[in-house]
Amino acid sequence: MGDRAATEEAVARPIRFLTGPGRAQLVARLELQMDAIRRPDLRRLMGQAQGQIVDLCRWVVTELGSSHPDRDTALLMALVDGLLIAELKGATSDEGQRRRVRPMFDAAVP
Amino acid sequence: MGDRAATEEAVARPIRFLTGPGRAQLVARLELQMDAIRRPDLRRLMGQAQGQIVDLCRWVVTELGSSHPDRDTALLMALVDGLLIAELKGATSDEGQRRRVRPMFDAAVP
Repeated sequence: MGDRAATEEAVARPIRFLTGPGRAQLVARLELQMDAIRRPDLRRLMGQAQGQIVDLCRWVVTELGSSHPDRDTALLMALVDGLLIAELKGATSDEGQRRRVRPMFDAAVP
Repeated sequence: MGDRAATEEAVARPIRFLTGPGRAQLVARLELQMDAIRRPDLRRLMGQAQGQIVDLCRWVVTELGSSHPDRDTALLMALVDGLLIAELKGATSDEGQRRRVRPMFDAAVP
């Protein structure tokens, strides 16, 4: 379980940053994302920039022993996106965030 | 498994609508959501309007036998939010959508 906790932390850390000190960066990213929905050129650029996030998520699900890395990478990315939005919509504590991150992982890689 | 498929369809249907004929409605909802991040008054209104979605998700996770309805409702909602954004960012087929909705459910209620 030590490894699992460390892997969990690898995703929990950027989530903590983006919903804490990096909040403005997260809001800017979401605004860009909204524009990208309308502009294919921007969508392409965003897709390229997202490579790092894809790599992190793929590493995490592989590390957690996923037998369907493609599926679980997409699932984890959708979860992280949804979780970030949920955090912005409500005021939450660090403890609450940890409580939500853990089931997310357990769900992403059963 | 018949019940599970029907329950799955209860969430897959609005997702299909919002990423198909109701696309403009989804984009408008996401724009409102972005504004709500900045405006507490709008955030309160959005929170009230979200009641229906909470109820649907709670019904689904309960129906699927969740033993942690609160946790799993929040998880499913985050998943659906993330999935809707992922669908808007990429061009996808109905078949691709079904392939993503199924693991989402399996993950949400292990």
